Amino acid sequence: MNVDGTPYRTIWLDDDLWTVSIIDQTRLPFEFVTVRLKNVDDAATAIRDMWVRGAPLIGATAAYGMALAMHADPSDAGLSQARDQLMATRPTAVNLRWALDEMAALLDPLSENQRQVAAYARAAEIADEDVAICSAIGDHGMPLIQKAWEAKGKPDQVNVLTHCNAGWLATVDWGTALAPIYKAHDAGIPVHVWVDETRPRNQGASLTAWELGKHGVAHTVIVDNVGGHLMQHGLVDLCITGTDRTTAAGDVCNKIGTYLKALAAEDNAVPFYVGLPGPTIDWTIENGIRDVPIEQRDGAEVTHLLGRAADGSVGTFQVTPDGSPAANYAFDVTPARLVTGLITERGVAEASKEGLAALYPDHA
Amino acid sequence: MNVDGTPYRTIWLDDDLWTVSIIDQTRLPFEFVTVRLKNVDDAATAIRDMWVRGAPLIGATAAYGMALAMHADPSDAGLSQARDQLMATRPTAVNLRWALDEMAALLDPLSENQRQVAAYARAAEIADEDVAICSAIGDHGMPLIQKAWEAKGKPDQVNVLTHCNAGWLATVDWGTALAPIYKAHDAGIPVHVWVDETRPRNQGASLTAWELGKHGVAHTVIVDNVGGHLMQHGLVDLCITGTDRTTAAGDVCNKIGTYLKALAAEDNAVPFYVGLPGPTIDWTIENGIRDVPIEQRDGAEVTHLLGRAADGSVGTFQVTPDGSPAANYAFDVTPARLVTGLITERGVAEASKEGLAALYPDHA
Repeated sequence: MNVDGTPYRTIWLDDDLWTVSIIDQTRLPFEFVTVRLKNVDDAATAIRDMWVRGAPLIGATAAYGMALAMHADPSDAGLSQARDQLMATRPTAVNLRWALDEMAALLDPLSENQRQVAAYARAAEIADEDVAICSAIGDHGMPLIQKAWEAKGKPDQVNVLTHCNAGWLATVDWGTALAPIYKAHDAGIPVHVWVDETRPRNQGASLTAWELGKHGVAHTVIVDNVGGHLMQHGLVDLCITGTDRTTAAGDVCNKIGTYLKALAAEDNAVPFYVGLPGPTIDWTIENGIRDVPIEQRDGAEVTHLLGRAADGSVGTFQVTPDGSPAANYAFDVTPARLVTGLITERGVAEASKEGLAALYPDHA
Repeated sequence: MNVDGTPYRTIWLDDDLWTVSIIDQTRLPFEFVTVRLKNVDDAATAIRDMWVRGAPLIGATAAYGMALAMHADPSDAGLSQARDQLMATRPTAVNLRWALDEMAALLDPLSENQRQVAAYARAAEIADEDVAICSAIGDHGMPLIQKAWEAKGKPDQVNVLTHCNAGWLATVDWGTALAPIYKAHDAGIPVHVWVDETRPRNQGASLTAWELGKHGVAHTVIVDNVGGHLMQHGLVDLCITGTDRTTAAGDVCNKIGTYLKALAAEDNAVPFYVGLPGPTIDWTIENGIRDVPIEQRDGAEVTHLLGRAADGSVGTFQVTPDGSPAANYAFDVTPARLVTGLITERGVAEASKEGLAALYPDHA
């Protein structure tokens, strides 16, 4: 999508045809900074330190990380080491494993002198495939917004609530949860987005608000506590979130707090949709609450925030008393019973084993 | 309760016997600063700008504000003007109206030269009554924590989740939601508190964490998104929150986000209690979602936070992109059906018209 009038993706091959550039998303929304990745260490750092985040973009970055590794050392040892290093960066992200499995399956049988070219080609394909998938999610999800708007008699505003950032910044382009919103906006539907701040890392307030604003989509930032009140008062027409991992039965593991919004949606009969690319479905598990390991991150993400001071300087600020510990669970699981539908690149599925199996007979 | 070994209340008459001191709670948890109120303007500012907050403390401050007004001008005009000025500070706080009605009923019939002494005496009584009420809430609520602990076989830790600050800082002493916790802690029950950060003003992360820490109660700060996940995994034994306003039917108007935690508690069979003093019950309404006006505050409270920078300076910093608007709904309403019980100074009531009427036959 556009940034100050210039079309961008979140990851691209540089003009030298071997280094790879990304947007350092930890600097948003205050600074727009691109970073050039020159080796697998850079790619691992970008994933681990969340310069890139979002399941699809993590996958694409891991794929390009393997390409950078093959540029430096196409040996079996280099291949194995790069795969292990990248796999260790974000244990909850199923896309990471998927992309690394893809790359390994391609590269393993090749000779050393074939691997570099093949790796760059496959990484580019993975990126392009993600753009196509997200665009298709948008095409399938857009009618849900359009129908909600039409059902209300085409008012001046149709309200979508989203949590965290599942926009183009979380993918290669378009986004997952936000793809239907961009498609609706571009089609002239007056969509307005309630943007959950998404503590502790504020991906909503910093990234979703930023990218919607840059694209010209009407939006309002709210703290994570507000959604239930809005739904009680008819101010949310539908919810759309993303997911980092979806089980074969339709349970949704997404950013911490998603479950609370799904509960409020059910309590107020607001449709709750989840946008996802097929590769993020984990066909090996069904019960997400029991079987998805939840990453616990550094408590400092809770006690300290990134912000811009009155003098314009950007830094971290402490918001808790000295000596008070903090816990930082990164994700939660929304059970399938609370999910109205799963918006995929193949269409909208019921959040159930049967619903997913019908759309993905090749996997189920 | 204690601050660095010194017992404090949140509001007290100074040694000069006419000025009134409070703690500037907007400076916590980074600075402990007391402020001397010298006139009704000071008292109104303290309430409006949330130097003092929490329903009971707002009531006590309003009462002392009337006393300060009578010190300056005990005429009928002075009385009427002070009442109007104080009433306008926080429209949602029923305690404010209650305290001002109490003071007016006392002062109206008195002659000008009787009003000052009577006002100070009644304000002191209101403060002392609040301490007695909160202590009684603690006595009635403590057994709920004790029983939860005993039912689990007296483990090393019994976990209570709370939202916002309904501790001694929100009252004159003891608190409402936290009174049972302090009583349990003092009785040797190993209570551990999950402290919701409570965006946008972070009263949990800044005030609840601070006062629990100063009293030596084990606690962990979490962002508002986490509670549902903890409940799904058996890590919360009971919830206790406060309330700014409770309807005659048991609907609870409390800090925004309370409703989401009550939904999660119901979904996971976790008891959800609300601590409240009788005076915060609004006997004139039943349907809280329909009839409680929800204060909308400045969006700057969402876009800017108070924090301490790396250099030790305390200030506000921006967390959203320039140009992204923010909405700031301050409270939400939790319907009575989600509330396990109301812990009052008279005992624990079912959250229903019948439950409250049984405890308060004088009002119902």
